[in-house]
Amino acid sequence: MWVQRQLTLEPRSRGFHLITREITEALPELGAIGAGLLHLLIQHTTASLALNENASPDVRRDFETWFDSAVPERAPWTHRLEGPDDMPSHIKAALLGPSLTLPLSDGRLALGVWQGIYLCEHRDRGGSRSLVATAFGE
Amino acid sequence: MWVQRQLTLEPRSRGFHLITREITEALPELGAIGAGLLHLLIQHTTASLALNENASPDVRRDFETWFDSAVPERAPWTHRLEGPDDMPSHIKAALLGPSLTLPLSDGRLALGVWQGIYLCEHRDRGGSRSLVATAFGE
Amino acid sequence: MWVQRQLTLEPRSRGFHLITREITEALPELGAIGAGLLHLLIQHTTASLALNENASPDVRRDFETWFDSAVPERAPWTHRLEGPDDMPSHIKAALLGPSLTLPLSDGRLALGVWQGIYLCEHRDRGGSRSLVATAFGE
Repeated sequence: MWVQRQLTLEPRSRGFHLITREITEALPELGAIGAGLLHLLIQHTTASLALNENASPDVRRDFETWFDSAVPERAPWTHRLEGPDDMPSHIKAALLGPSLTLPLSDGRLALGVWQGIYLCEHRDRGGSRSLVATAFGE
Repeated sequence: MWVQRQLTLEPRSRGFHLITREITEALPELGAIGAGLLHLLIQHTTASLALNENASPDVRRDFETWFDSAVPERAPWTHRLEGPDDMPSHIKAALLGPSLTLPLSDGRLALGVWQGIYLCEHRDRGGSRSLVATAFGE
Repeated sequence: MWVQRQLTLEPRSRGFHLITREITEALPELGAIGAGLLHLLIQHTTASLALNENASPDVRRDFETWFDSAVPERAPWTHRLEGPDDMPSHIKAALLGPSLTLPLSDGRLALGVWQGIYLCEHRDRGGSRSLVATAFGE
């Protein structure tokens, strides 16, 4: 069984946002997969997906602080045409990665209790973001 | 053909640990897959999985040194409730990622000669760690 | 439908190289997959795969600059046997990751307009690099 669908996420502020519920609600067919996988690709190069702590907003704020410090805007970037937040966003996106592959078990995501899906918006005004969701299994 | 199984890894010290053999021995069904994939998810947010050099312990020690320096415990973290090693562990885990997808070929993992699976334990006392292993193919 | 094939990439200079066309041309069978996934694994521990901006060469140069600065050769590495560029290459490779999983839709990679596949060559003389490509779908 294969399900493939384009999802659109509304614009978010720069930072790390929990989107687990938004993803699962957009894919009711997951309920029919006993054992399988869900693959998500964000079709952009300045935003990324991650899986991390789903409870404390402090954790997500600290992610933003660390990434801003590790990949600073004030650096001798060559690529500057699209603004100071652009080139750091490409690097942050590559470090975290554009996709997640997650197990499906008994019709649900088989995540740990504390795991949630993050949309990592690295740009100041990234606008809406497109995902391709592909689920398959038996 | 689909195989899905929960695996439990015994507690490890903080650092990078080679677990390739432990994984393959827990999944004898891989031998029946001619062409396919193995997906592993660690169901935690302060430990991660990676694929890297399977020979020299020095490499794994240098991984620990670099990650400790790049994501230091002594930093103005907001999230401190669970101890100084917790928030850095979340970030290290996101940088390395919670999952691996690996090709299966003729009943075996089709890795490079020097590649091995790392359990990356970022906490001082992470305890035992749960994985979901999903293998499929023909 | 499953396709699995070993690909060999010719030696590249240290840096980030766009290889999308090389990959798709080596896998004409992708055209027969209506909905599926393509998985790529680089079978090495000092080179990696990433998905990022496919237009400006400046972006790829800035990637090299940032990674060289974040994981410097001049550092107290324990593992030095294979030259000063070796240990940093292992860490860069783990940060970016050894594999990509990408959606296939109507016989083509369903990437964003600006997304391209990077071969990230972290060594000065990495030589040719082997990939395992696994495509499947319906």
